[in-house]
Amino acid sequence: MKDLKGEILAMVEKDLAEIEIALTDNLNPYLDLVSDVAKHILFAGGKRLRPLLMVLSARICGYQGNYDKVFSTIFEYLHAATLLHDDLVDGAELRRGKPVANRIWGNSTTVLVGDFLLARGLSIAAATGKPRIIKIIAEITENMSQGEIHQLMRKGRLDITEEEYLEVIWRKTAVLFQGACRISSIIANSPKRYEKALSEYGNNLGIAFQMADDLLDYTLDTNALGKKVGADLKEGKITLPVIYALKKAGRTDRHRMESIIKNNKFSVREFKLLIELLEKYGGIAYTKERAKEYIEKGKRALLVFKPSKTRKLLEYIADYALVRKT
Amino acid sequence: MKDLKGEILAMVEKDLAEIEIALTDNLNPYLDLVSDVAKHILFAGGKRLRPLLMVLSARICGYQGNYDKVFSTIFEYLHAATLLHDDLVDGAELRRGKPVANRIWGNSTTVLVGDFLLARGLSIAAATGKPRIIKIIAEITENMSQGEIHQLMRKGRLDITEEEYLEVIWRKTAVLFQGACRISSIIANSPKRYEKALSEYGNNLGIAFQMADDLLDYTLDTNALGKKVGADLKEGKITLPVIYALKKAGRTDRHRMESIIKNNKFSVREFKLLIELLEKYGGIAYTKERAKEYIEKGKRALLVFKPSKTRKLLEYIADYALVRKT
Repeated sequence: MKDLKGEILAMVEKDLAEIEIALTDNLNPYLDLVSDVAKHILFAGGKRLRPLLMVLSARICGYQGNYDKVFSTIFEYLHAATLLHDDLVDGAELRRGKPVANRIWGNSTTVLVGDFLLARGLSIAAATGKPRIIKIIAEITENMSQGEIHQLMRKGRLDITEEEYLEVIWRKTAVLFQGACRISSIIANSPKRYEKALSEYGNNLGIAFQMADDLLDYTLDTNALGKKVGADLKEGKITLPVIYALKKAGRTDRHRMESIIKNNKFSVREFKLLIELLEKYGGIAYTKERAKEYIEKGKRALLVFKPSKTRKLLEYIADYALVRKT
Repeated sequence: MKDLKGEILAMVEKDLAEIEIALTDNLNPYLDLVSDVAKHILFAGGKRLRPLLMVLSARICGYQGNYDKVFSTIFEYLHAATLLHDDLVDGAELRRGKPVANRIWGNSTTVLVGDFLLARGLSIAAATGKPRIIKIIAEITENMSQGEIHQLMRKGRLDITEEEYLEVIWRKTAVLFQGACRISSIIANSPKRYEKALSEYGNNLGIAFQMADDLLDYTLDTNALGKKVGADLKEGKITLPVIYALKKAGRTDRHRMESIIKNNKFSVREFKLLIELLEKYGGIAYTKERAKEYIEKGKRALLVFKPSKTRKLLEYIADYALVRKT
C-alpha cells in the first residue's frame, strides 16, 4: 500500500502550518496557567484532522475569505476540551505517551480549562456572525457531552447493542467531524446540496474513524498507541469488535470472553486470548467491514463536487482513517 | 427594616413561575440521567436571581416579545453549570443542605452534565439569532472559567490583594449578572445608553452580591447557610473581610489570624476568634461598606430609565443583595 499519510501530509503542509499558528493566536487567555494547560493538550501531537477537514471543506466549496484557519480552530478547541474532560472521566494516565493534564494540574484546573476551551470555541463560532453556525456548534457540544454520558452509563455493560454503540459514537465523535465539514459550506454561502454532501461525508467519516479507533485497542502494541493495551476494556468501554463477537460466540466462548472483560485486571495472556476469540468470531473483521462501508458512503457523498485536488485529499483522508496506526 | 424579600417576591411571583416552567421546558436532554443531574442542581431552591434580572431588564427596555423567559434560562443554565463544576473544584459536600451532585453521581457524570448545561445555554443564546448576544454569552463563559482558575491559583495565599480579589469576583460572578441585564437591551433593540446603564447596574450588583456572599461565611450560622461554617476559608478562599483585616492588623494579631487560616482544620472556637479579629480590624464593616457603594453605584445607573414599578423592583433587588441571609 502506498504511503497515504505521507502523501496527505505533503499536500496539506502549508494548511497545517497555518492551523498551528491559528491555534496559538486564537487561544487568548489572560492567565498563563490556562495557556499552559491548554497547550499541554493542544500541542501534544494531535493530527489536526478536524480543523483540516474544515479548511478543505471550505476550499471545495470555493470559500475565498481569510478566516478559514481561524474558524477551523473551533473544532480543535472543542476536541481538546472534550479530551481534557474525558481523561478525567476515563481515569486515564497517559495520552500520546504524556501524562494526562489532570495528573499534572489536578482535576479542578483541568475541568475549568476544558470549560475555557469550550467557551473559546463558541466565541470564535460567534465571530462568524452566523447564528446558524453557532447553533450547530452549540448542538455539537450538547451531543458530545450526552454521548460521553451515555457511554459512561453503559460502562462495563455487556448487553450494549450495536445500535446503541452507533448512537454513542455518533454523538461523541461523528457530530464534530460532521460539523467541521458542514459549517464550511455555510461560511462559503454554498448551495444546500453542498452542505448536505459535506454533512454526509463528515458524519460517515466520523463514525468510521471512531470504529477504527476502537479497533486499535485490539490490533496495536503499547508503543504505537501511547497508552496501555486493552485500555478501552479496562475503562469498561465495550466497543463493536467485542459487541459483535459476544453476539456470535457460542456459550462457552462467550463465557470465556465475559470473564476476561468483567475482570478489569486481566493479564496480557488473557487479553491475547480475548483477541483470538474476537478474531475467531469475526468481531475484528466485522468492525473493519462496517468502517469500510461508512468510508465508502462518505466518499460517495463527495461526488456532488467535480474532481479536484481537494476532493482527492478528502477521499485520501477518508481512506487514511481506515489504515492509520495512531 | 421592611420585608424586602417578601415584597420583591410578591411583585415577581408570576415571572418566577414562568421562569420555573421555562427551565424545565428548555432543558431538552435525550438521556434521563442528564435530566436527573441537571434538575438536582437546577431545582434545589435557587433564587432565580439571574433569569429574573434578565426578565426585568427586558421589561424596563420595553421588550414586547414572548421569549424573555426562554432567554432568561441561559443565565440559570450557565450558573448551574458552574455550580456543578465548582462543587467538584471546591470539594464541597453540601449545597443548600443537599449533597452535591458529584457525591451522588460521581465526578465524571457531573462534569459532563455541566458541559451539557453550558452547551444548552449557548444553544439558547444562538436561538436569539443575534451574534452579538452569543458573543457576550461565550465571553461570559470564558471569564467565569478563568475567574475560577484564578481563584484556584491563589488558594490559601494570604498575599492576595483587594485588587486581585475584585478581578476574581468580577469574572466569576459579576460578568454573568452584567450579561443577564445587558443582553436584554440588545434583544429589545434599545438605545446604546440603556445597554450601558444595565451593564453598569448588573456589574455593580454582581460585585456587591459576591461580597455579600463572602460576608455570609463570617456572619451566619450553619443552618442558614446550608453548608459548614468557615467553608470558604477551609477551601482556601481568602475573601475581602480577611484581606482587609490582615492588612490592618498589627503583627501579633496578624500572626494569630494567619495561623488560624493556614490550619484548615480550625476549631469553632478558633473560627470565632478569627471573626472577632475581623471585626476588630474592620474587615467585616469595610466589606459591607464597599458592597454598599457598589449597590448605590448600580442603582444610580438605573436613573436613565424613568421611574416605574420595574425600576423600583431592580432597586429593591439591589438592596436585597446586601441584606439577604441566604
